Amino acid sequence: MNDSAAPAWDALWRHVHLATMAGEGYGAIEHGAVAVKDGRIAWVGAESALPAGARAAREHDGAGAWLTPGLVDCHTHIVYAGNRSDEFEARLNGVPYEEIARRGGGIVSTMRATRAATPAELLAASRPRVASLLAEGVTTLEIKSGYGLDTANEAKMLRVAREVGRTLPVRVCTTFLGAHAVPPEFQGRPDDFIALMCDETLPALAAAGLVDAVDAFCENIGFTPAQTERMFQAAAAHKLPVKLHAEQLSDQGGAALVARFKGLSADHLECLSAEGVAAMAAAGTVAVLLPGAFYFLRETRLPPVQALRDAGVPMAVSTDCNPGTSPMPSLLAAMNMACTFFRLTPQEALAGATRHAAAALGRAGEIGTLEVGKRADFALWAIDRPADLGYAMGFNPCRQVVNAGVAREPRQGGGLP
Amino acid sequence: MNDSAAPAWDALWRHVHLATMAGEGYGAIEHGAVAVKDGRIAWVGAESALPAGARAAREHDGAGAWLTPGLVDCHTHIVYAGNRSDEFEARLNGVPYEEIARRGGGIVSTMRATRAATPAELLAASRPRVASLLAEGVTTLEIKSGYGLDTANEAKMLRVAREVGRTLPVRVCTTFLGAHAVPPEFQGRPDDFIALMCDETLPALAAAGLVDAVDAFCENIGFTPAQTERMFQAAAAHKLPVKLHAEQLSDQGGAALVARFKGLSADHLECLSAEGVAAMAAAGTVAVLLPGAFYFLRETRLPPVQALRDAGVPMAVSTDCNPGTSPMPSLLAAMNMACTFFRLTPQEALAGATRHAAAALGRAGEIGTLEVGKRADFALWAIDRPADLGYAMGFNPCRQVVNAGVAREPRQGGGLP
Ligand SMILES: [Zn+2]
Ligand SMILES: [Zn+2]
Repeated sequence: MNDSAAPAWDALWRHVHLATMAGEGYGAIEHGAVAVKDGRIAWVGAESALPAGARAAREHDGAGAWLTPGLVDCHTHIVYAGNRSDEFEARLNGVPYEEIARRGGGIVSTMRATRAATPAELLAASRPRVASLLAEGVTTLEIKSGYGLDTANEAKMLRVAREVGRTLPVRVCTTFLGAHAVPPEFQGRPDDFIALMCDETLPALAAAGLVDAVDAFCENIGFTPAQTERMFQAAAAHKLPVKLHAEQLSDQGGAALVARFKGLSADHLECLSAEGVAAMAAAGTVAVLLPGAFYFLRETRLPPVQALRDAGVPMAVSTDCNPGTSPMPSLLAAMNMACTFFRLTPQEALAGATRHAAAALGRAGEIGTLEVGKRADFALWAIDRPADLGYAMGFNPCRQVVNAGVAREPRQGGGLP
Repeated sequence: MNDSAAPAWDALWRHVHLATMAGEGYGAIEHGAVAVKDGRIAWVGAESALPAGARAAREHDGAGAWLTPGLVDCHTHIVYAGNRSDEFEARLNGVPYEEIARRGGGIVSTMRATRAATPAELLAASRPRVASLLAEGVTTLEIKSGYGLDTANEAKMLRVAREVGRTLPVRVCTTFLGAHAVPPEFQGRPDDFIALMCDETLPALAAAGLVDAVDAFCENIGFTPAQTERMFQAAAAHKLPVKLHAEQLSDQGGAALVARFKGLSADHLECLSAEGVAAMAAAGTVAVLLPGAFYFLRETRLPPVQALRDAGVPMAVSTDCNPGTSPMPSLLAAMNMACTFFRLTPQEALAGATRHAAAALGRAGEIGTLEVGKRADFALWAIDRPADLGYAMGFNPCRQVVNAGVAREPRQGGGLP
């Protein structure tokens, strides 16, 4: 045995069970081990198969925990100021929707608070929500703009999103969602607003390196397919990938549209047609399921999960964390709701919050499974079996989170000073 | 000004907003203060009205947090061994219910694991779930037996429940739920089983001081009203108050039955009749709403909330934390579900988790509101307004918990070593 030829790792986790999420099912390896070198997974397998003489600068005893890929929340509007609990309460006290709108409720209410906030205020307001996700093992997080709705404020939101990634232990992917709602100053002129977003805002934000992807809200109460397509063409001109809020409240053909642009994902999909499923399957577009919005809106129409399964469309699960229709900064809650409402299996829910969520961000080669060469982002869980992660609601068994090989405790406030 | 006549308190919280839950609505006092002496509330009011010269051994700066009564979870089956994520997963993979039953699923599965566990194992299995509640500001917790189903194992469960209260910062109220299910050794002989519970088990447990209240599961898949009544008569013979799992899946007249015994509460109530509502109103029996079970069972029939309101029946909200139909150790999640599914207002949900939950435990004179003389159990929350507690899902803004005047941080693991 030649120790000098044996691997010398930075860190090694032993005495863990692995849900690698690679291959079939959970890709489970009981009594496993994972080694890290330079922030990446250097070795993964059964502990009994560890190479002879392998050394690591740090050894972690997982105490029989299950170790999964770090969770990936691939659809959030988590950066915003204010909240809408006042509207929530007013609705439950019987105040009619029109009256709430007259008081300035809805997305415009969040837009006003977000525009009024300084970057520091916006960061401070958003950090507890992000911390809630990080305490649950989230290591990659998508954050959308869309409450600024002018160039300066959309830029402010995306800079704060980048700042989240610089100041908390999480990798942030930014998405420009200028086509979220028409702001008051463009009321009745949605095409002019889309022109502004396409011709001025997106070019400015893309040039500043603030945009990883482009999204839109294609809906009868949002933007038309034609307006959405214009946004996508602008994205294509900047070589940016696209995704879409599609088929949430009505079938607008949005899934087929985003598939035509080889989009990363179509999200929501309660009203998705068979044609939409086929188009997504052909394009490799991920279906992002958002059961939090389904829950808060008390929807009854379910996304066509069996059709997506049959067509081989990968299904991701995300929080959709936002102040109006999904004030839910918990990816574990979304996973449980995906099982309970949408009848995903716990294995599908975990794949949806790891492997397929990574694909929805265009990062499938980098994160989302435990495979050699991928970034060493993990979560360790004090559970009996991987199904526990989909089974419980409001219970966080996360015991350690690892970002690029660096371990931290998932304390409430995860990373907050 | 005579300082020697001014109050000398043990502790004082300043710079807080109060939701006293006494009087109308939230009983809100913005810019309030609360003082504690000998573990009880000695003073509560506007900070500007603090008596001149008042002194406190410890002063806490609430930093603008909202301070509410400590939360009360008044219906849980939180002490058990094993879990049922395997059944959850099997069902979602299409395994028929009969096959799961043949494999020994359901309550009997939890009974087997609980019987097999030592007291230390049972405590260790239950503590993380209890800690999850405590991290959310729960200061009083009801724990039911009902997975032992023989004298020795029911006693073991209730001793572990008492041990939870001795070793964690929470007051525990125990409930004997021998009439939960018929164990295999009594299959087909439910009356014999009820006789054992009434004639042997309850007397033994009551004599050991292990029982604060008596409960039963009155249902077409549980015990009949006649069997329930027999249990209640045994409880009355021991001068123990009663409560009931009533009208969850069918209308058995359980609410009227428990009201006839001046019961503390009738719980679930999705199938409650107008007669049941009237009987509860007349008897002062609390309606305990359990939206977690509604959610996990994907019920569609709603409890008659408006009829309960109209009749003046107090409504509590609880987790029903149990491994089969509500694996949800989060009272904040239950509050949000009570608003979302049952259309309670956030104020009703908070009253349901404080004042009315205290009444459901027969402790309304002791806990549940911020009033002079009550036990100094509080929670402090980093929120903008009390409605935030009902509005969000999967978000815990609790910043401090106070048990009988003693402050602690609500860390994940709340109180775990
Ligand atoms: Zn969204
Ligand atoms: Zn129950």
